[in-house]
Amino acid sequence: MMQQAVENPDVISLAAGLVDSESLPVEPTRRAVETLLGDPRRGQAALQYGTTAGSERLRDALLEYLARLEGVAVNQLGITRGQLVLTSGSQQLLSILGEVLLDPGDICLVGGPSYFVFLGTLEGLGARAVSISSDHGGMRLDALEETLEALRKKGDLPRVKMVYVVSYFDNPCSVSLEESRRAKLVELVERYSTHQRIHIIEDAAYRELRYEGDELPSLWSLDPERQTVVLAQTFSKCFSPGLRVGFGVLPAELVDAVSDRKGNEDFGSPNFNQHLLSTVFEEGLFEPHVDLLREIYRTKRDCLVAAASESLGDVDGVEWAVPQGGLYLWMSLPTMVETGLTGELFRRSVHDEGVMFVPGDLCYGGPVESRPRHQMRLSFGVQPLDGLREGMARLARAIEAVL
Amino acid sequence: MMQQAVENPDVISLAAGLVDSESLPVEPTRRAVETLLGDPRRGQAALQYGTTAGSERLRDALLEYLARLEGVAVNQLGITRGQLVLTSGSQQLLSILGEVLLDPGDICLVGGPSYFVFLGTLEGLGARAVSISSDHGGMRLDALEETLEALRKKGDLPRVKMVYVVSYFDNPCSVSLEESRRAKLVELVERYSTHQRIHIIEDAAYRELRYEGDELPSLWSLDPERQTVVLAQTFSKCFSPGLRVGFGVLPAELVDAVSDRKGNEDFGSPNFNQHLLSTVFEEGLFEPHVDLLREIYRTKRDCLVAAASESLGDVDGVEWAVPQGGLYLWMSLPTMVETGLTGELFRRSVHDEGVMFVPGDLCYGGPVESRPRHQMRLSFGVQPLDGLREGMARLARAIEAVL
Repeated sequence: MMQQAVENPDVISLAAGLVDSESLPVEPTRRAVETLLGDPRRGQAALQYGTTAGSERLRDALLEYLARLEGVAVNQLGITRGQLVLTSGSQQLLSILGEVLLDPGDICLVGGPSYFVFLGTLEGLGARAVSISSDHGGMRLDALEETLEALRKKGDLPRVKMVYVVSYFDNPCSVSLEESRRAKLVELVERYSTHQRIHIIEDAAYRELRYEGDELPSLWSLDPERQTVVLAQTFSKCFSPGLRVGFGVLPAELVDAVSDRKGNEDFGSPNFNQHLLSTVFEEGLFEPHVDLLREIYRTKRDCLVAAASESLGDVDGVEWAVPQGGLYLWMSLPTMVETGLTGELFRRSVHDEGVMFVPGDLCYGGPVESRPRHQMRLSFGVQPLDGLREGMARLARAIEAVL
Repeated sequence: MMQQAVENPDVISLAAGLVDSESLPVEPTRRAVETLLGDPRRGQAALQYGTTAGSERLRDALLEYLARLEGVAVNQLGITRGQLVLTSGSQQLLSILGEVLLDPGDICLVGGPSYFVFLGTLEGLGARAVSISSDHGGMRLDALEETLEALRKKGDLPRVKMVYVVSYFDNPCSVSLEESRRAKLVELVERYSTHQRIHIIEDAAYRELRYEGDELPSLWSLDPERQTVVLAQTFSKCFSPGLRVGFGVLPAELVDAVSDRKGNEDFGSPNFNQHLLSTVFEEGLFEPHVDLLREIYRTKRDCLVAAASESLGDVDGVEWAVPQGGLYLWMSLPTMVETGLTGELFRRSVHDEGVMFVPGDLCYGGPVESRPRHQMRLSFGVQPLDGLREGMARLARAIEAVL
């Protein structure tokens, strides 16, 4: 897809998973750097080596931040600073968790659909992704239990090491796991942790990008023992991906393994970026920026949804749900329309109309033949409003031509 | 050692491998950020996602930088930008190369002594480190050939995948590989690449920290086909370790494998830091800073050497060479003095005198019983001048007490 984009520079990409460029925090970052480097001692500390787990100052700020998100006091979080590890985006945490928890042939249960980059990470590790079907409320618990039960009967339960859930406004559907399913999902996974602990990896990358509704408690907060869920968060979506600061909240028993692996990989993520981000928090620059982003992305979402309604609202079998947060619109076409990279719609979209999307089949794990092939992921993150409108108009023409 | 340091905060550490804090580039970094974020478009580009291989602008600047170091024009380097990959310090490159090139049981030839962190990386991969004895001119070619020949006779040559050389002012001895050995080392390794290519990993972390003598050509520049040597450089020592920007110059055939691995690990190192460093280059802030560092470290080296001469110059069997660059003084004691972590000298140094060093035996690969145990690495990177003097005085008292 990247190559197609390079070869067709006039194509409007509704595929790219980048963030909105105009709203990147140039001014907040400038002010934070000014404060940080304006004090020679703080500046020197930021430019020196850090530790593998990362800046204590930032990790303390993140404990407070996490407490605010969960609506509790810091001392009610039930963890210590030592259980927080700073990583290069959440991708590094996901990759390290894969290395630490999965052997080739091990099984990770994922939503169907799920975040395609993580599916690639699993594949790279030789692990098996097993899809659990999802609906408007995220991963279906009946489907999860059915799959776990089937794996148990086949004797495969000892190979199940991980359940991967993007719990807020997921990639690719912008669906959040329903509140009523959250505690039950943790209980269910613990119930099947009979041979070894099955960890839940809760990827909360889009948590802050909420345009409607109330904040939900994390799966992690509903794990009373803090032993099952690993919470992965990042500032790539809600502040700046160029800083590559993510963090993980680890069960105590995983701290050493993750830290050892990270130490081998890079000694620790850039200390400067961590000091910079803790200054952003201390100077009160973070929350106003997130508020601004919510406004901007809400407007972009509204624009893309309106454009879709206008051009495709009357077309039978073309469906989408209005995302309450996140960066993506997940669209279903009539099942006879093939959205894959080698299909007619993709070719026509890119070459004839000049618009690109992510084919939905890339977002499913498991056997290729079992994957739905009539869906697509559209991003409203990157394009400005006129790009969203024009992109949707082009896409509608391509869809209608194929239909 | 870290724990001992934490538990004994009054201890003067001549062990820590950090850099001098006072000379960290607070002002150059501040100016570069001002320029970068003063222009909204550049600022936005820096705060957006980058690519896995890293900023093209910085990689182009690094091609020019490399050409200056090697004393040739950019078009004489014989590589393209695509062969440069930006990593989180050079550690990430070393770690990725290990993952890509080594299977458990594979052999990496290392200097004796060598950089102990890399020995740990090899151990973590299940690879075998085989020590090649070194002298005042670095790795001995006769010893290297002898070892390769012995491995060939044992049928182990197919397991030899790598030769690791810190070619400039190495860690732990501050010895550079002699100029006359450089081309010959490449030839020798190529001659034994009969079963598969044996790569030379040239770690040039201390290349810029030269206090005497002329710049030497890299091993990489003496590899006419650009297929054998991987050059690993970093800005951790010569600018700021807090930015964690390193780079690798890869043989064309390794580009995809390294890039795939890096993509899985973190998608790419922080784009912001790369844009920042390219601004440092563009604004002419880099070279003056390196000149300053050379002055500062030369003075610190002179201070530590003078203190050693004063307190230990007359003690039989205590020897060191004056480093021409780098951050370390490598000291040999009479062979009956055991410098290891569990020995009397280490205990006495830390607990009675309050000074810490890196025991030399940690810097050797291969069987524990074969390692010299009467050497130590002393760093003049971190301590200010009075810390160097006092640290050496304390160390001398401990040594004399043990003798």
